[in-house]
Parts: sequence; structure tokens; C-alpha cells
Amino acid sequence: MKNYYKIIESEMLRVNELILLHLRSEEKLVEVVSKYLVNSGGKRVRPALTLLCAGLFGYKGESHTKLAAAVEFIHAATLLHDDVVDDSSMRRFQATANTVWGNKTSILVGDFLFSQSFKMMVDAGSIEALSRLSAASAIIAEGEVVQLVRLSEKRMLSIQEYEKIIHSKTAELFSAACEVGGIIALQDQEVNKKLCEFGVKLGAVFQIIDDTLDYFGKQGEIGKNIGDDFYEGKITLPIILLYKAATIEERKFLDDAFFLDERTEVSFDQVCQALEKYNIKHEIINYTTKLTAEGFSLLEQIPGDKLYINSLKELLHHAASRAN
Amino acid sequence: MKNYYKIIESEMLRVNELILLHLRSEEKLVEVVSKYLVNSGGKRVRPALTLLCAGLFGYKGESHTKLAAAVEFIHAATLLHDDVVDDSSMRRFQATANTVWGNKTSILVGDFLFSQSFKMMVDAGSIEALSRLSAASAIIAEGEVVQLVRLSEKRMLSIQEYEKIIHSKTAELFSAACEVGGIIALQDQEVNKKLCEFGVKLGAVFQIIDDTLDYFGKQGEIGKNIGDDFYEGKITLPIILLYKAATIEERKFLDDAFFLDERTEVSFDQVCQALEKYNIKHEIINYTTKLTAEGFSLLEQIPGDKLYINSLKELLHHAASRAN
Repeated sequence: MKNYYKIIESEMLRVNELILLHLRSEEKLVEVVSKYLVNSGGKRVRPALTLLCAGLFGYKGESHTKLAAAVEFIHAATLLHDDVVDDSSMRRFQATANTVWGNKTSILVGDFLFSQSFKMMVDAGSIEALSRLSAASAIIAEGEVVQLVRLSEKRMLSIQEYEKIIHSKTAELFSAACEVGGIIALQDQEVNKKLCEFGVKLGAVFQIIDDTLDYFGKQGEIGKNIGDDFYEGKITLPIILLYKAATIEERKFLDDAFFLDERTEVSFDQVCQALEKYNIKHEIINYTTKLTAEGFSLLEQIPGDKLYINSLKELLHHAASRAN
Repeated sequence: MKNYYKIIESEMLRVNELILLHLRSEEKLVEVVSKYLVNSGGKRVRPALTLLCAGLFGYKGESHTKLAAAVEFIHAATLLHDDVVDDSSMRRFQATANTVWGNKTSILVGDFLFSQSFKMMVDAGSIEALSRLSAASAIIAEGEVVQLVRLSEKRMLSIQEYEKIIHSKTAELFSAACEVGGIIALQDQEVNKKLCEFGVKLGAVFQIIDDTLDYFGKQGEIGKNIGDDFYEGKITLPIILLYKAATIEERKFLDDAFFLDERTEVSFDQVCQALEKYNIKHEIINYTTKLTAEGFSLLEQIPGDKLYINSLKELLHHAASRAN
């Protein structure tokens, strides 16, 4: 277990219990698919954030575990639908649910998990936390449509467009997970805003590294297929930076690969070589290091238990180091 | 406009405003798809129920319109996902959203509408109403999986199994729509339970008649394709009753049609003729008349404004008469 989970170990066990309890269904298939996904070795980063951000202020009730479980369910529901939309075949070292049970089951079980997440939020009893998480859900769903539309436009994205996509795709739920920890611990708006901003930085780092590992990771280490984003034609930060650095000829090659769908194993290798040539990984590490420093600085402004602050720092540091 | 909408006319306008307000999105596609669905001439029965059940007790706030709009959004989100799962091509006299924009868009816009529905519930400010509607959402999603599993089992259903399916598919949201009207008007549990039970009866009648019109309706009157359920191989009440009445030879024919997927225009006509032969429509009308009488009796036990009681009766009567 990672260090930053130690101080919330017993609460994480409680979150797991709550998760299993809310996966129960009279219909076996619902339970089987939900368990397959929820128990598939995800690192439970999002619920850990809620527990850490409530623990920061000495929160002692039960509601933070309920909100943490709800956050994980929103995440799981999103994954189920994402994998259908992206036609993904592998996630966390196993075949995706849509590959095993079909798209229809994934859509409906996703809806079930999403509804169960709201039941848990209701149980937590905080309208303010509910409000924060339902707003996050809407932003996530909207962002998925934006990503679909961008993909269909078949054009290079600006860094700003990419930042917007990863915000709604990942950073929004990270930041809501942090903020509801503060909300449930009755912190004031100013503090909650800092938790929210910290979550945004962490989520951005997390997604950027994920997108980077799609080109630089090793099969068998990243839990999905290397090159997934490439073969789906997704424009991510490595490609945007490469495009900026590339010659006219290389740009033509990237245009063909991404917008005329000429994506083969050979072209994937060529992209990887070009990324090496222009030292894109170095550029990305500079970028995430800046975000990490901003995250650290936010944490230092939050008046909470230093043990928890340090755990959040470790978590951010770990997220940023995955590509090293 | 139907009579029963007259006493809630101004509130229905407010619900429409809220609906349009919450369809807004920076991403045009989200707005276009949402509007296509929500403005496609649905009768807004479910939000009307919430308004009528709050009006029963003289409710004067704003929250019932928010809950009513939320109920319509849950319904719309469910329709978007259903049409993907059922591969439906026509609904309410127009091509389904998945036909026009593809399955991926329908899945994601459904998620967006679902999230927006929770935002509106949060705005309404009643944890109890939120709890009731999130429970309904989970039951609806679970029921959809049950329906999918039953379909894959390729066997005749019992009436009890059918009743369970239509409960989660339709009656659950009708009953929640009614009950949150009472909840927001601060009625006690006993009254709210009666509203809930009334909604169950109404929803069951509504779905049974819908399923019946799939065989007995006239193209151009029911808003979707006649025979849709048949061609999808869905086992509905007309088929269950026909199977009970049929000879061994006729059962063999039904088995082939539904479980060996031998469904053609010719076999559809043969099913329609067999339904006539055994007077199945008459049997169904007996069944829905009993449900209608039970619904009326429940309404008479509810201590509320007689004008509203009468509107609810009219609504139930109208739902039951659609197949006449």
C-alpha cells in the first residue's frame, strides 16, 4: 500500500464495504459486471482524496466514506460508458466490460452505478456536497461530448483545447472529490476553493501522464494497450507538442495518421521516434513539474493537519513521477 | 391541451422554461440533441404528475417545478439510452437520436441529461425527494438490465415477470413523480404511500396500453413503428396472454417467431390474427380496467383538493382509453 493511504487505511476499508453493499442487485448480471469493474484493481485515488481532504480538518463522521464511495461510482460509471464510446478493449490489465458482456450491458450497468452513486450522496446528507458532485457529473458528460466532437473534426487541437478536455475528463472529478472532503468537514469557501484548485492540478497531472504513457509506457505496466490513444486517433499533449516542433513533412505525416486515419504499427513507431527526436517527454515533464509545484503551493496555504497535507503531497508527487 | 393540464398550465410553462435553461451547453451538439429529444412532442405526463400531486395540497413554492423538470430529464435520459440498447429507429413520429447522431452521442448526451436532472433536484432542496428519485433511477437502470437478460434467455415470461419489468421500466418513475409532489408539499408517509401506489397503477396501465398498441395501434397514431416490440422479440402482455390461450401448434409458431428469431411481416400478421381470434385485447382491457379502478379508489382516499383529484382521475382514464 502506498504511504499516503496509511493514515486513511481503516476508512478505505469502510469505503470498500460501502462499495460492495451498493453493488448488490437482484439481477446477478448487474452485480457481476459492477464487481468486475469496481474490483479490477483501480487504485481508488478519487475516494482517497475525499477521505484525505476531510481528514485534513479532523472530520470524524461517516459521511466522508459515503461521498468517497459515491465518487468512485461516478468514476466507474464513466469508465463503463467511455469504453463503449471509445470501443476500448482493455483496461487495468483485463478485457473491458463491453468486450466481455457487450455494449448494451455496459450502458445500463453504467446507469445503475451512476444512480447508486446518487443514493450514496443522499445518504451522506449534505446538499452542498450533492450539488458539487452533480455539477461535476454534468461537466464530465459534457466534456465527453466535446471530445467526441473534436475527434470528428479531424484537426490539430491547441493546448488550450486539450487542457479543457482533460479538465472535464479527469480534473473535474478529482477536484470535486477534494472539495467535498472540505465541504463535509464544514470548511469555509476560501479553503474549499483551494482544495478544489489542488484537485484540478492533480487531475491534470494525472491525465497528462496517462496520455504520455500511451506513447512512452511499457505494455504490461500501464494496464491498457500501449498506443490506444494513437489507434483511436485521439489528439493528446505529446502529439500537440510534437506537431508544434515538427517540420512541414512531419506535419503532413501526422495529418495523414490522425486525420486520414492512416494509423498502423509502423506509423505508431514513427510517431514514437519523432517524439524521441524532439525530446517531447522532457517538455511534458517540465509542464507537469510546473503543475506539481502549483499544487504543492496550494497545499501549503491550506490550514490543516500536516500529516494529511504530506499525504496529499506524496500523492501528487507519485502521480507526476509515473512517467519517469 | 388535455383538460387535466389546465389547472397546472402556468406551472407547466415554468417547467418548460427550466427544461430549456438546463439544456444549455457550450457544446452545441449537446444542446441540439437534448432539444431534439425533449421538444419532440412528448406529452410531459411525468412532470404533470409532480405538479398535480403537489397542487393537491395547495403547494405554493418553486420546488415542485424543479422536481418536475428533473423527472422529465430522467425520462429523457432513459429514452436516449433505451433507444441505443433497443436499436430503435423511430420515436414520437421522428427518427431516434441514435439514428441521427449515432449511439455514442446518445450515450453521452443521456449522461448529461441525467446529471442535469440531479442538479435540478439539488436546486429543489429536498433530500427526501432526492432520495426518492435517485432510488427510482437505480430501479429503472436495474430493470433495463433485467429486460435485456430476459430477452437473451429466449423463453416465455410469466405475467409476474412481465409486471416486474413494466414496474421498473415505467411505473417506478410515474410513482416517484407522484410521490415527490406529496413530499415537497410536506405530506405524511401514509399520504405519500398512496400517491406512490397511484403512480404505480397509472404507470402500469400506461405501459400495458403502450405494449398493446404495438399490435393493435395504427401506424401514424402511436408515434413509433407498429410491431417494434415484435421485431425486437420483446415478450409483452399480448404475447403472454396469447401463449396461454394458444394451441400446441400455435405455441410452436410463437416459439419459432420469438426464440428462433423467425420474425417477418408475414409472421407479424399471423400474430395479429391470432390475437384477434382469442380476443386478447378484451382480456387486456379487463386487466387495465381493474388497475384503473384501483387507481381511482386510491385517489378517493387521498385528502386533497377535489379539482386536482379529478385531474388525476382524468389522466388515468385517458391513459386507459388509448387502446379503445
